[in-house]
Amino acid sequence: MSTVGFIGLGQMGSPMAANLIKGGHSLRVFDISETAVEKMVELGATAATSPADAALDVEFVITMLPNGALVKNALFGENGVTETLDKQALLIDMSTVHPFETDALIKEMSDKGFSMMEAPVGRTSDHAIKGELLILAGGTLQQITTAQPLFDCMGSETVDAGGPGKGIRVKIINNYMSIALNALSAEAATLSEAIGLNFDAALKVMSGTPAGKGHFTTTWPGKVLAGDLSPAFMLDLAHKDLGIALDLANQVNVPMPCGAASRELYSIARAAGRGRQDWTAVFEQLRVTSGLEAKVK
Amino acid sequence: MSTVGFIGLGQMGSPMAANLIKGGHSLRVFDISETAVEKMVELGATAATSPADAALDVEFVITMLPNGALVKNALFGENGVTETLDKQALLIDMSTVHPFETDALIKEMSDKGFSMMEAPVGRTSDHAIKGELLILAGGTLQQITTAQPLFDCMGSETVDAGGPGKGIRVKIINNYMSIALNALSAEAATLSEAIGLNFDAALKVMSGTPAGKGHFTTTWPGKVLAGDLSPAFMLDLAHKDLGIALDLANQVNVPMPCGAASRELYSIARAAGRGRQDWTAVFEQLRVTSGLEAKVK
Amino acid sequence: MSTVGFIGLGQMGSPMAANLIKGGHSLRVFDISETAVEKMVELGATAATSPADAALDVEFVITMLPNGALVKNALFGENGVTETLDKQALLIDMSTVHPFETDALIKEMSDKGFSMMEAPVGRTSDHAIKGELLILAGGTLQQITTAQPLFDCMGSETVDAGGPGKGIRVKIINNYMSIALNALSAEAATLSEAIGLNFDAALKVMSGTPAGKGHFTTTWPGKVLAGDLSPAFMLDLAHKDLGIALDLANQVNVPMPCGAASRELYSIARAAGRGRQDWTAVFEQLRVTSGLEAKVK
Amino acid sequence: MSTVGFIGLGQMGSPMAANLIKGGHSLRVFDISETAVEKMVELGATAATSPADAALDVEFVITMLPNGALVKNALFGENGVTETLDKQALLIDMSTVHPFETDALIKEMSDKGFSMMEAPVGRTSDHAIKGELLILAGGTLQQITTAQPLFDCMGSETVDAGGPGKGIRVKIINNYMSIALNALSAEAATLSEAIGLNFDAALKVMSGTPAGKGHFTTTWPGKVLAGDLSPAFMLDLAHKDLGIALDLANQVNVPMPCGAASRELYSIARAAGRGRQDWTAVFEQLRVTSGLEAKVK
Repeated sequence: MSTVGFIGLGQMGSPMAANLIKGGHSLRVFDISETAVEKMVELGATAATSPADAALDVEFVITMLPNGALVKNALFGENGVTETLDKQALLIDMSTVHPFETDALIKEMSDKGFSMMEAPVGRTSDHAIKGELLILAGGTLQQITTAQPLFDCMGSETVDAGGPGKGIRVKIINNYMSIALNALSAEAATLSEAIGLNFDAALKVMSGTPAGKGHFTTTWPGKVLAGDLSPAFMLDLAHKDLGIALDLANQVNVPMPCGAASRELYSIARAAGRGRQDWTAVFEQLRVTSGLEAKVK
Repeated sequence: MSTVGFIGLGQMGSPMAANLIKGGHSLRVFDISETAVEKMVELGATAATSPADAALDVEFVITMLPNGALVKNALFGENGVTETLDKQALLIDMSTVHPFETDALIKEMSDKGFSMMEAPVGRTSDHAIKGELLILAGGTLQQITTAQPLFDCMGSETVDAGGPGKGIRVKIINNYMSIALNALSAEAATLSEAIGLNFDAALKVMSGTPAGKGHFTTTWPGKVLAGDLSPAFMLDLAHKDLGIALDLANQVNVPMPCGAASRELYSIARAAGRGRQDWTAVFEQLRVTSGLEAKVK
Repeated sequence: MSTVGFIGLGQMGSPMAANLIKGGHSLRVFDISETAVEKMVELGATAATSPADAALDVEFVITMLPNGALVKNALFGENGVTETLDKQALLIDMSTVHPFETDALIKEMSDKGFSMMEAPVGRTSDHAIKGELLILAGGTLQQITTAQPLFDCMGSETVDAGGPGKGIRVKIINNYMSIALNALSAEAATLSEAIGLNFDAALKVMSGTPAGKGHFTTTWPGKVLAGDLSPAFMLDLAHKDLGIALDLANQVNVPMPCGAASRELYSIARAAGRGRQDWTAVFEQLRVTSGLEAKVK
Repeated sequence: MSTVGFIGLGQMGSPMAANLIKGGHSLRVFDISETAVEKMVELGATAATSPADAALDVEFVITMLPNGALVKNALFGENGVTETLDKQALLIDMSTVHPFETDALIKEMSDKGFSMMEAPVGRTSDHAIKGELLILAGGTLQQITTAQPLFDCMGSETVDAGGPGKGIRVKIINNYMSIALNALSAEAATLSEAIGLNFDAALKVMSGTPAGKGHFTTTWPGKVLAGDLSPAFMLDLAHKDLGIALDLANQVNVPMPCGAASRELYSIARAAGRGRQDWTAVFEQLRVTSGLEAKVK
């Protein structure tokens, strides 16, 4: 069992800390909310008066804070973690922050002789309570191995994201996709209702197509990911059908800004001569438009 | 076995007609491409010289054409279907056209005493060849029942979309979602590559979250669809994380217009006071913004 | 003075017809609204019972209708203009329709031996009443010259847009720019208010900069239009400042979808290596992205 | 004549400092580039070794730095301005930073007993050289009055933006509008070229309409700004014309993401029942959508 400084006892941090205690670890906890600290003390934690105090004589420090500026301040600010942290200890930032902030913090910690990794989490506060979070570990293999017993208390699955800074990158990509998709889904569902369609009927159909199953594991593997852009469904036809949907939406006054934006991406692909390629070529085109090297010749 | 006039022998129409012939039906086929007609004749069809000729003495006429104007012309133009069609026959439009065009065609056919339904198809030309299309039937129960033997030759699954005009509506909603999602997926995958992340790692994570599984069957049923907007994941946090992703993308020059547009939808929801509601409230907000009656009070 | 068939007596058509009557021309007027026809008859026009009747024995026919389908029907439908129109007469479509519809109508009229030009109008219904419209003439020089006396009754300025089909193109470009700009202006003004700024102060500043004066005659002529992309204001800095504004807007819940979309265009330009070029390079980049040949080497 | 510490000698800062020297003021200059410092020394300035050194015994300190983090560091970091600044002196930040950063800096300075205002600048580096910048002064009347002699050396016009923090707000609004407008202009000009229109013809027309002159001083004052939403140009028609332009653009493969986004704003206005109001109602609608109180009842 290990000694752990835990900084940040919010909606996610509190149940995570509680599960570490339940797992037999000794915690020194800090939060600006005294109430949050007291609840952990009742569960067996020791109250710390500052980040530096939380980091005193521990093998691990975990930060779970709302943004990167707060993490930075907890590490390097007055009474910060680095004032007391042992050089053999491991700092694990589990917050969701900007990846470039994570990179900078890891570098600054390393420059000062400390070991830091990041491990943001997936899933919800319910999963945090049950110890069933998804841990997105960004660190060296050794760091991840060292931290694994702690991760096992807080989560049910750990993904090795591929190295330092990669855990937060995976987290941001995943959240980007799910958050934007939520809005796009709202557009489709609202249009469905506005044109008098029973959403269950639409849902039944979509659950069997890329509309509901996504493209990453359906249309992409055999086409754009395999370097084959011969058309299973021609990009020009996708563009045409999208135009019908947008016209329809505009006639019934359903704003669909995501879909409208997506049509212009197809327009870029068509302007680049991809109209008769497979619709998945929109990915290859966006890669090229972003300055990445073309994969499909 | 039935007699069928088939108009439109393109990439989809040809294999559909071939499967009807294989199923034992007698076809009169028409297309502006003589080559396409000849190929069907070799399979046993009778060549027709016009839509009117194709509609002569048949129980069904199927149209599978590139757009609504062509369907309209095939029905009502010179030498059009309605010049010869029997009033007891059933016209089935399987093209993908604007739903309001479908509505107008059904009405005009009905006004003239003809029976018409629509049945656009899902899936790809490969499925058309194998007779495994998804048939999205929009018609009365009687029309669908009458047409079912034909559908069974061309497809492996028929969905009763809920009445006349609903088949094309389901098709458009499904295509909207899958086509826009394809572009959104391209944004996420391109950003992933641009920030040095192995896409397989991202994919592994996303395949277990709404990013990969969609929201319709994961986050929505227990929340916005159930009228419960208490936060499992707070809309404000979704907005924050989306902002990080967009900032990141702009720093590495990956254009993400769909995601950028989606952030503004979250902004609308926040302006409406939904910041501390569940992120699925973006659907309820878009409903309200579209002038639909609020469902969650 | 001429004889004129006038079809379409709406908010714009009525005052235009009235001004032709006032100018001494003899009008045969048709509209589906009998009230509208009667008002013109009171002013001295002759009532026509159909487009064909309006076109009987006249030197000009003017159409001023809500959309292209109605114009097409007025020309070629039952009791349409072409049933009676003299081959020496000139058909002038002043409606705002899709340019490709205009092209098709001109071609079909020409194929049938008729002379047609388009002349959509600018400005408002107030200007229509005063005979101060802006006439955007698309036609041969001879057609425009022939029609000029009529234009002079309805408008105070005629622009020769450069040939058949060009009048409607100018109209659409102008309207695109002013309509989208109206929305963009709303974003800036709303953000201004939301951050507690007196709009008059903002307006005073903007009226002296491209924000208020536009770019076409300020920043573009010496830079991108002259093939000089050396930076007066660096594209990277424009991108940075835009990011600040969007972050600000998202913090105060002002949705700015136009601005958000524009940032992604700058992102495309940066990905193409234009970050240190002048900000007007965003035009050259969009040209290239649209498949047009690069102008600046 | 005054003593001035000047921190930040980049493309804008250098000519601004030079003009202060030319105006007779005594400067202590600091920049991380020694070359930039030396050039000012040649013009008569005293070289400073740090922000603190630049602030020694001066009546004013001016900061002109690339971003807010650098300004913050110059003020409060090691060897920062506040280590030496006289409590009677005035700190003027002329950088373009996030307005909320400006607010925080002003507050922190005030808390520590220092006087700070902001005065970002408009126009280009050419204007900086000629001393013809536009000064957007955000401060108390007394601060502005005190700083005016310095502003007069660097600029030809000073706008009192309405108080502390308002100068940077005006700057951001102005830049938002001009930067997004630049992209929108690129869309219109590219479409113009793609449809074979001579841009000069389009430009001639647009220069006489809101497309070229903007809306703030043309269509808005008599309508939405006056609380009159009776239609001079109906919002529904604007929406229709915009749809034509977007359809055209998509047919000729010109991506127009700004215009596409703007159409969805009109869609929101239509959904809110404003279709028959004046098109300037898009501003009032966006205000309401942003949670601001409706102005027009």
